[in-house]
Amino acid sequence: MIQQCYTMHDMEILFETLTTFNKPGEMKGITRLAYSKEDEAAHQFMVETMGEHGLFVRKDAIGNIFARLPGQNSQLPAVGTGSHLDTVPQGGAYDGALGVVTGFYALMQFKPGELLRDLELVIFRAEESSRFGFSCIGSKVMTGKVKADQWAENVDDEGQSFFQVIDDAGYASEKIASCCLPDHYFSAFIELHIEQGKRLESDGLTIGVVNGIAAPTRFAVLVRGHADHSGATPMYQRQDALVASAMIIEDINHAACRESPWGTVATVGKMEIQPNSMNVIPGEVTFYVDIRGIEKCSISRVASRLQEAVHKAETDNDVTITLREISSEEPVKLDDGLCDVLAQQCEKNDISYMKMLSGAGHDTMNLAQRYPAAMIFTPSKGGISHHPDEFTHFSDIEVAATLLKETLRELGNRQ
Amino acid sequence: MIQQCYTMHDMEILFETLTTFNKPGEMKGITRLAYSKEDEAAHQFMVETMGEHGLFVRKDAIGNIFARLPGQNSQLPAVGTGSHLDTVPQGGAYDGALGVVTGFYALMQFKPGELLRDLELVIFRAEESSRFGFSCIGSKVMTGKVKADQWAENVDDEGQSFFQVIDDAGYASEKIASCCLPDHYFSAFIELHIEQGKRLESDGLTIGVVNGIAAPTRFAVLVRGHADHSGATPMYQRQDALVASAMIIEDINHAACRESPWGTVATVGKMEIQPNSMNVIPGEVTFYVDIRGIEKCSISRVASRLQEAVHKAETDNDVTITLREISSEEPVKLDDGLCDVLAQQCEKNDISYMKMLSGAGHDTMNLAQRYPAAMIFTPSKGGISHHPDEFTHFSDIEVAATLLKETLRELGNRQ
Repeated sequence: MIQQCYTMHDMEILFETLTTFNKPGEMKGITRLAYSKEDEAAHQFMVETMGEHGLFVRKDAIGNIFARLPGQNSQLPAVGTGSHLDTVPQGGAYDGALGVVTGFYALMQFKPGELLRDLELVIFRAEESSRFGFSCIGSKVMTGKVKADQWAENVDDEGQSFFQVIDDAGYASEKIASCCLPDHYFSAFIELHIEQGKRLESDGLTIGVVNGIAAPTRFAVLVRGHADHSGATPMYQRQDALVASAMIIEDINHAACRESPWGTVATVGKMEIQPNSMNVIPGEVTFYVDIRGIEKCSISRVASRLQEAVHKAETDNDVTITLREISSEEPVKLDDGLCDVLAQQCEKNDISYMKMLSGAGHDTMNLAQRYPAAMIFTPSKGGISHHPDEFTHFSDIEVAATLLKETLRELGNRQ
Repeated sequence: MIQQCYTMHDMEILFETLTTFNKPGEMKGITRLAYSKEDEAAHQFMVETMGEHGLFVRKDAIGNIFARLPGQNSQLPAVGTGSHLDTVPQGGAYDGALGVVTGFYALMQFKPGELLRDLELVIFRAEESSRFGFSCIGSKVMTGKVKADQWAENVDDEGQSFFQVIDDAGYASEKIASCCLPDHYFSAFIELHIEQGKRLESDGLTIGVVNGIAAPTRFAVLVRGHADHSGATPMYQRQDALVASAMIIEDINHAACRESPWGTVATVGKMEIQPNSMNVIPGEVTFYVDIRGIEKCSISRVASRLQEAVHKAETDNDVTITLREISSEEPVKLDDGLCDVLAQQCEKNDISYMKMLSGAGHDTMNLAQRYPAAMIFTPSKGGISHHPDEFTHFSDIEVAATLLKETLRELGNRQ
């Protein structure tokens, strides 16, 4: 049975409940890595909650969740909304989860058959790249963008690929093709997410209407030197994989700073050192480079500079370096018509907003390649995200949830 | 009962047997961290082996092992030899273990009462810094160099201090003062060890007579930045702890290269990154700097340069850096008289040798501050050490074991 009234307060409680699905013993923020026990439990909890509230819930073969509220004509493409529940290690409570709870709140404001079209809440799996080194897996699978060979190479810290992990979790990697959604499945898709930057806060605005998404180009860099005794090996005989890596990290940072006018950024966030002992020269280092921007030329310039840095570091440090592209995605333009609908709803409801680009990647960038799509951003305090201090004021969340609801009403009644 | 004849082949078998005390599942080299189960088992095996062969074996309160062969006058200071059994992660089979098995071989060549003085084989605990971040713990304890406050701060990867670990292993940290050896305990101490460099190999020599040891000066560097989203945080707003660390690592490497004429070296071998996720700017990095040399001025110049690099990295990257000295030891000169005895024995037995300095630290540098001490080096193939490929030809080991035996005979019969 659908409840008579699902309030903002109910949504707040749901949000707080989701924060309890955390890695046991985690003292800083939320750690809910894709397909971990705590991630599975959070998804199962949402399946039960949505079912209890009368939505028709289905899971696909990799665990993406779809919860549908029927409209008058279920033959028409549905209006979709949603986000993800997985997090980075020691991340915040808002990234992803906010789009799930506000989406659920918005659906709960309508009765079955009240709108013309079905509404559907989607919970995408494995949006964060923290576990497998590549992101937005659920939405890639839904939109037919599986790269089986490439994905099989990228393993988690336990050495398991995405395919092994989902099979162990009881899903069915061999049925992955069945997860691809048909054409015209959605007439529109709107994802609500925190900004993860501080433009809205700086400009004193409540809503960002996102009309484009920067996509990451990512590389894995494997540096092979030689592990020797730190005391007995003179400087000129060293093949130090960490010194070579440090040179590359500095060069990439410098290259990205030069591209600041185009908004391009580059980050080395993850690095592993072997054998990682104080008195042994590092023999092997693996690290990952994440380059993002809206301007393809600017992204390419940073990638070229990375290649130059690799060659220089090889020569200077007598090491061998392998550069492997993990992913290279096109920056995505979102649907102008949908952005206009969101802007009109903001104006109608007296909500301060700006049209803006997203620096972070989102599942919507995959959906946007098949269906009209747009995003709603809420402000992030201090621009902080992927960190325990991630925070959005509840008053801003209420405005955004209301905007989402009104937009779904408008789109759900369109012929 | 002492065996009638303990051969080179027996020693080779003992050496091979010790390689089997390894971390379960280790595929690369030997991992026998101080006080791990495998390290304890190796020590227990040596206690039993030495006891079965008639030596008088005792353990002190932290697990250092002493095995004594009585001479004619046990009132006289003994002649000591020995080394250690612990290893770095994925280390080699020779570093440490070779000095234990050759020492045992040498003692086994004499009958009780055959020499004037007692001979004593010492197995030092926790020589490698891999577990606690500081080295030669056993020999420091024996020579009264315990720094309780400093040692309590340096914890292993499980967060346990040396004191907690030895108590858990059944030793008695509260009795640590009892481990300090009396004055005149040894009349001489000779440690046999692999070179861990390639000078002997390059010069085609079989033996190094070590007349000085470079000692490490070590720092822990804690860099605190801010963990933010890698896509949504512009370059100018970043507080990237890894970029700051990379700058320091490059600067230290450059500083040590400038000091090459004085033989000084500097290494960053161990580094931890938080949260270590591809799409999060590193918020916190800890790394360790190991500076070694014979010339104090040269070591100081590198340490000063480290401090300058820290200040620059703080300013350039908007991060806070804490520099903590873990240890600072004086380079040690070994006993000229003992070096001459070793050199004379080489000449007498037609062994090619050179006098040389040790770049790596050894337990002997602590012993040398209380007793006349020297070292014998055997060649390391390719200079490789702290690595699975560490190797010394058995023919070279035979020569070194014979030299050790003849030197113990000479010193053991001295009035």
